[in-house]
Amino acid sequence: MAKYWSRPAAEALKADGLRIADLDTSATPGFSGDKAMGLGLLAERATLLSGLQEKLYANGRSGDKRSVLLVLQGMDTAGKGGIVRHVIGSVDPQGVDHAAFSVPTPEEKRHHYLWRIRKALPRGGQLGVFDRSHYEDVLVVRVHNLVPPAEWEPRYDEINAFERELVDEGITLVKVAMFVSLDEQKRRLRQRLERPDKYWKFNPADIDERAYWPAYQDAYQAMVDRTSTAYAPWHVIPADRKWFSRLAVTELLIDALETLKLDWPSAKFDVEEELRRLDKA
Amino acid sequence: MAKYWSRPAAEALKADGLRIADLDTSATPGFSGDKAMGLGLLAERATLLSGLQEKLYANGRSGDKRSVLLVLQGMDTAGKGGIVRHVIGSVDPQGVDHAAFSVPTPEEKRHHYLWRIRKALPRGGQLGVFDRSHYEDVLVVRVHNLVPPAEWEPRYDEINAFERELVDEGITLVKVAMFVSLDEQKRRLRQRLERPDKYWKFNPADIDERAYWPAYQDAYQAMVDRTSTAYAPWHVIPADRKWFSRLAVTELLIDALETLKLDWPSAKFDVEEELRRLDKA
Repeated sequence: MAKYWSRPAAEALKADGLRIADLDTSATPGFSGDKAMGLGLLAERATLLSGLQEKLYANGRSGDKRSVLLVLQGMDTAGKGGIVRHVIGSVDPQGVDHAAFSVPTPEEKRHHYLWRIRKALPRGGQLGVFDRSHYEDVLVVRVHNLVPPAEWEPRYDEINAFERELVDEGITLVKVAMFVSLDEQKRRLRQRLERPDKYWKFNPADIDERAYWPAYQDAYQAMVDRTSTAYAPWHVIPADRKWFSRLAVTELLIDALETLKLDWPSAKFDVEEELRRLDKA
Repeated sequence: MAKYWSRPAAEALKADGLRIADLDTSATPGFSGDKAMGLGLLAERATLLSGLQEKLYANGRSGDKRSVLLVLQGMDTAGKGGIVRHVIGSVDPQGVDHAAFSVPTPEEKRHHYLWRIRKALPRGGQLGVFDRSHYEDVLVVRVHNLVPPAEWEPRYDEINAFERELVDEGITLVKVAMFVSLDEQKRRLRQRLERPDKYWKFNPADIDERAYWPAYQDAYQAMVDRTSTAYAPWHVIPADRKWFSRLAVTELLIDALETLKLDWPSAKFDVEEELRRLDKA
């Protein structure tokens, strides 16, 4: 366990029994350091993460089918993009399978909601990242009645079965739900409106969505209550402090990778013989 | 132009008239600094590259169809993977479309050789990276007679026409061929055989390929002679010094992005009105 943590992040951030409406989004559960300590630790742990990811990639190249998939969910401005940029950005891009799921395209709409998800699953040895995911189909879809309850209601069980299948195939799921307060969201949206270099991140609909905050909290609560399983638990990350959410996700990924107990792949050739051949080549 | 460069990298590394067989692979064309200066500059320029890439991405999100595609070619151990890890690794993974082209799969073999290439082209706003590319079809394919000359011979013109099409669609091509000396390759292969954490990078066939070095040099020469066009020129990078090849590719990408003269996308909404709405939301 990394320093300044009183318990492993995977444990401190577990969604079990947590009331999202009561969440202190400025807290740093399990972490006793301040921002400077957090940033220092983040730099250190990013190096470890990068090393573990390289081992995963090396094993993938040697035929290992296992992979790790980070699933990021969170309201607008919660910092999902920052996780990709700053946490996933610390590992080798060759080993990253990144997918962002936005409003379904006309083609995607003609298919089952898991169709586009299956197509984007990480290949063996890869670190997959889903910026939004199949969970949109029990979040925005539920909040805005995009389909009737009789259609989204069975999805929780269906998603659990789907994820069981993924885990059985060797995908380690790291599911992360990030939350900022309504005030912090307002601050971040305002920044996007005050800085011309951030206009492109702003969408007027983000303001409209704020009226649905309670409905989203209910939908997120149902999501973590009903799809947090032993094999694919949810982690809830208070995200008002960007440094903390980045550190927390880094720790969760390190934990997932360490659990795989990866070693460097063994040589599939006779090392001495190849050294002799090389000398003469 | 960055400091320590006597002329822009794009010019100093241009393939025009260059004899690959005579290339000094330990040289640093156009760059007058030493390794320490190169590494210092690399860190500085990586920040600029990352900022330019973010602008490209921002414009892509706002509907701009333009993109930049880095095409990496080079013999085994030339350092293509290091470019991805250390140069592309300095930008936001969300904005990177990475594809590695290895031996064609059975499905790929049933298609035209450009089929898999077209499928992997960068989306608007993305920085695409091809680790190997359609040029394999005039390199390894030519050297090993995988198809008869009557089949690969027309490919040079076909590739030129294909790339003309890409450029017309808004893709800026940055084509880079990296070369290490035969001795440097031996040193790097030996390291892969001496360090268990590098076994996974070693393939016995890499040693066999060394016997084809002259044939590869001919194939590379034909490639740069026949597919270096005004709209998609080749750059030849002496790659014995990893720091130089990384700096050189960074400069080429910066040059390509600066040529696009990107600005932050303008607001597609009334900023004042949205600020008012936000205050009340």
